Amino acid sequence: VSDNQHILDELYQVILSRREAAPDSSYTASLLQGNLDKVLKKVGEEATEVVIAGKGGDKEQLVYESADLCYHLLVLLAARDLPPEMVWNELRRRFGVSGLTEKASRTTAT
Amino acid sequence: VSDNQHILDELYQVILSRREAAPDSSYTASLLQGNLDKVLKKVGEEATEVVIAGKGGDKEQLVYESADLCYHLLVLLAARDLPPEMVWNELRRRFGVSGLTEKASRTTAT
Amino acid sequence: VSDNQHILDELYQVILSRREAAPDSSYTASLLQGNLDKVLKKVGEEATEVVIAGKGGDKEQLVYESADLCYHLLVLLAARDLPPEMVWNELRRRFGVSGLTEKASRTTAT
Amino acid sequence: VSDNQHILDELYQVILSRREAAPDSSYTASLLQGNLDKVLKKVGEEATEVVIAGKGGDKEQLVYESADLCYHLLVLLAARDLPPEMVWNELRRRFGVSGLTEKASRTTAT
Repeated sequence: VSDNQHILDELYQVILSRREAAPDSSYTASLLQGNLDKVLKKVGEEATEVVIAGKGGDKEQLVYESADLCYHLLVLLAARDLPPEMVWNELRRRFGVSGLTEKASRTTAT
Repeated sequence: VSDNQHILDELYQVILSRREAAPDSSYTASLLQGNLDKVLKKVGEEATEVVIAGKGGDKEQLVYESADLCYHLLVLLAARDLPPEMVWNELRRRFGVSGLTEKASRTTAT
Repeated sequence: VSDNQHILDELYQVILSRREAAPDSSYTASLLQGNLDKVLKKVGEEATEVVIAGKGGDKEQLVYESADLCYHLLVLLAARDLPPEMVWNELRRRFGVSGLTEKASRTTAT
Repeated sequence: VSDNQHILDELYQVILSRREAAPDSSYTASLLQGNLDKVLKKVGEEATEVVIAGKGGDKEQLVYESADLCYHLLVLLAARDLPPEMVWNELRRRFGVSGLTEKASRTTAT
């Protein structure tokens, strides 16, 4: 079940599910079925908007642009057939949070 | 307890905890205690590296750079006193996943 | 007379001349009369396209995107009331080409 | 003679001349002899700094970062064996300034 799933992981599943959708009915489908450059361009574009919003000081705008950036990063990962779990694992590895320990404690907690 | 926490939310807590650390002992501390421009610059820089890696086709590099980007985005949110939960809520709002429903189902599941 | 003017300096004059034009008849006017963020966003966007084209290896595309970036950088300078000559002077200062010497030799040459 | 040469064209010649220099004595040489990704990364990085400076309002900083961006764009063109003249021609083509007419009027002027 997905009830404990983080929104980013859930969103990634939504993105994957739209892979085969009609591109004119789904923005995600149009990105995934189009040229990869378009996805890359969006990642750069949204990062620029995060930077502008971060510099400007409008917090609501920063939240909005950060959401845009996260979504397009997930689309890029999907376009490259990479599950976000690989990114989470890389972060766990760097910051000393063991996925194994985490899973174990989760089992205990349930 | 944090055992169900997503690595990004956990990492955000780690970032907050380093806010007051000695900047020469913690990269995160040096970012948070320095000029905001440095954080913004890192976000733009890491996004560029994601784009280069995405274009290049080295999947391991793309994972690595995506982790870098996520980390620096969290540092920017911390520098602006914004909990990542606000970004997750924005994504839930857009993609029709109700946080309320989610919470409810989670309660049911436990 | 402008006959010895570099295209970038000439283009900057064109940009300035469109400042007061009707925004729906001139893209430059729409940029200069709109929010500065839009100009900043275009600079970041075009830089990302330069990076993608540079990585990809299509030389024609790299030329095209570089032209886009130069144009939008000039628009940004115009939006901030900065003549590009200030950027050229900064480059001369760094790379040891004296503007004075240059002007002198130019006078000699004519 | 180069006395009428624009600083950007002159700088491009300087960049080419450093191609074979010892990388530890010349930053340009280190960029041109290293991985292309490093050059691409610098272009993205400097563009981000232009955006930050443009948003921030410090004109001196914007001039400085614009110079950085122009220099690294020229290094990228050099790394791809593209003379900047191709970019200038693309801009002339778009903005209706004929290179031929220009050359003719220059001849007349001399």
